[in-house]
Amino acid sequence: MLGNFVYSNPTKLYFGEDSLKYLSEELPKYGKTVQLIYGGGSIKKNGIYDQVIKLLKTNGKIVIEDGGVMPNPTVEKLMEGVQIARENQVDFLLAVGGGSCCDYAKAVSVSVHCNEDPWEKYYIRFEEPDCEIVPVGCVLTMVGTGSEMNGGAVITNHEQKLKIGHVFGDNVMPKFAVLNPKFTFTVPKYQMASGIYDIFNHICEQYFSGKDDNTSDYISEALMKSVIHSSRIALQNSEDYEARSNIMWTATWALNTLIAQGKATDWMVHMLGQSVGAYTDAAHGMTLAAVSLAYYRYICPYGLSKFRRFAVNVWDVEENGKTDEQIAAEGLSCMENWMKELGLVMNLRELGVMEEMLNGIADGTFIMEGGYKILNHDEVLDILKDSM
Amino acid sequence: MLGNFVYSNPTKLYFGEDSLKYLSEELPKYGKTVQLIYGGGSIKKNGIYDQVIKLLKTNGKIVIEDGGVMPNPTVEKLMEGVQIARENQVDFLLAVGGGSCCDYAKAVSVSVHCNEDPWEKYYIRFEEPDCEIVPVGCVLTMVGTGSEMNGGAVITNHEQKLKIGHVFGDNVMPKFAVLNPKFTFTVPKYQMASGIYDIFNHICEQYFSGKDDNTSDYISEALMKSVIHSSRIALQNSEDYEARSNIMWTATWALNTLIAQGKATDWMVHMLGQSVGAYTDAAHGMTLAAVSLAYYRYICPYGLSKFRRFAVNVWDVEENGKTDEQIAAEGLSCMENWMKELGLVMNLRELGVMEEMLNGIADGTFIMEGGYKILNHDEVLDILKDSM
Repeated sequence: MLGNFVYSNPTKLYFGEDSLKYLSEELPKYGKTVQLIYGGGSIKKNGIYDQVIKLLKTNGKIVIEDGGVMPNPTVEKLMEGVQIARENQVDFLLAVGGGSCCDYAKAVSVSVHCNEDPWEKYYIRFEEPDCEIVPVGCVLTMVGTGSEMNGGAVITNHEQKLKIGHVFGDNVMPKFAVLNPKFTFTVPKYQMASGIYDIFNHICEQYFSGKDDNTSDYISEALMKSVIHSSRIALQNSEDYEARSNIMWTATWALNTLIAQGKATDWMVHMLGQSVGAYTDAAHGMTLAAVSLAYYRYICPYGLSKFRRFAVNVWDVEENGKTDEQIAAEGLSCMENWMKELGLVMNLRELGVMEEMLNGIADGTFIMEGGYKILNHDEVLDILKDSM
Repeated sequence: MLGNFVYSNPTKLYFGEDSLKYLSEELPKYGKTVQLIYGGGSIKKNGIYDQVIKLLKTNGKIVIEDGGVMPNPTVEKLMEGVQIARENQVDFLLAVGGGSCCDYAKAVSVSVHCNEDPWEKYYIRFEEPDCEIVPVGCVLTMVGTGSEMNGGAVITNHEQKLKIGHVFGDNVMPKFAVLNPKFTFTVPKYQMASGIYDIFNHICEQYFSGKDDNTSDYISEALMKSVIHSSRIALQNSEDYEARSNIMWTATWALNTLIAQGKATDWMVHMLGQSVGAYTDAAHGMTLAAVSLAYYRYICPYGLSKFRRFAVNVWDVEENGKTDEQIAAEGLSCMENWMKELGLVMNLRELGVMEEMLNGIADGTFIMEGGYKILNHDEVLDILKDSM
């Protein structure tokens, strides 16, 4: 654990099949008017909406509806949510959904009392909020982003062809999150697999960075092994409670800052995937899956010992009589096989990317500096081409 | 992750070799009068005392001295600390030391405004505090107990021959902890090894329990591997910053409730060790070391598949051609060899226990119910005899 860092995470987690009832412990702490944020309406079909409404009413809340949050929340939707919050002077934002709803709620929370253009302030100039922040709570119904216990909020601007994440501080993190694994049972398999790969890639982004050999690496390997193990069970039976609960818990800890401590952190796969997302509006996890192997195979020589360790510790690759390069390559092949098992999208073409978009996607890819190799524009373009 | 649970941990951690300066961010949040809690005075020799005093003065605090906290804080010392706090109407308790100082500070914090006998209320009747709690902060100089990020506070009553831990809630946890690995460099090797085994056993107590196969088990294995790895480096060079920092970080996460989530948790080794401690006043980690192998070998058949997994995942025991029993036994032998490498005390005799004390130690051992086998008094006695 080299370097200095500060760790704190104020989000309170209520986990388990009975966890929704704890809304009644949390809601009384906040004001009367609650903006209820949700997505395309699946929560109305599976009954979660009714359960939440009932608890809101029991707790005497005025409910302001804000549905229709799309998988990749747009800047237009953000401004719509801000207007709803302003007009109704809402006291609390309750997101019921997956990472998109939760990200969106956080983006709204820092924008309601912001006097400037939130997109410009938070996503172009990357400034921190200096206004009052409307508190956020979360009932999670889809797993992957870890948004329920972090400060991240990704917003897409289709006009500018940019999909950008801002990681806000402790004060923007959800005050609480309700994690009921059963709420994830009805998520379609495509979305489940996409979320599982999002989890796995969050861990990779933090693991494949830095020079020291530290506790965060061991924990990262543990989380990877846990998600690989449980994903195989969930793939066979999406209602296996134990598997779904382990996936849900792993997702939270994969991106709540714990395993980033003492690490440089990379995030290039996310930068590539987000730029692809801005062009295709594809499911986030699938954009990551489509570019991952090309990226990791490209940077492998620059972080060989770590890729070797990954092969041995995560994938149980046999070491005897092999070069480091061979061991590392076998690890990535194991990862590729697992990704295929999950039915992930393994190339950009399947996501609707066309050759002529690649330059634009490369232009929209932010270059991060924490990984084993700082890429240049040509390298980004090469990796995108290799992902086709 | 079976069952329902609530996770939250409000302690803010400042980690790294420059972390002490953050006292100046935290101290202004609390009142003027600070009770400075420390142990036998080693912090005066190594200069930490002077650094802390300087920061307290810079922040305009009135410092009330409360030194001399012993390795196993007694109920008499607790009442002395409470009197100091009451007489000086202290606003904040700053513990500078190891787990003993931190435990003691928490015990004082819940006792200052308590109208009853704290020992009776918290340690015999196990009630929760219903009075004002004086906030606690911590500057850690010795590693092992995890007390810096949890609600635990162990107090010893020599007259009653009882050493009891009460795990208090979020509101009693330290508001912040300063974790500077360099502050642990001067801890004598015996104490360092004792602390390392305390960490390892905390993980074991949580790992060896429950029927499900969950993320907490994977994280537990990661923490065990991390502490085994770094302990071997620290043993050769106690000033290896990376090793000491990883040990420090692992200690915190080994007992801050994370890896207990979804688990039954055992704690019988701690119950045995604490009863030994009440009779011998020996270093906590050494009391655990002396009884561990006899205990784990006794319960191994009742949790065979987990002991098998422990052997394979933590100690890399080769599985081919062996029975589960053989694999499990080999894992415990690997653990034994590592304990000997560390120079741990491997039997009770070395801690000053005599044959005639065993019945009393068995009587003083609380029987916990989370492990693979609920022991009876005779079994406790047998394990103690096997530990001689």
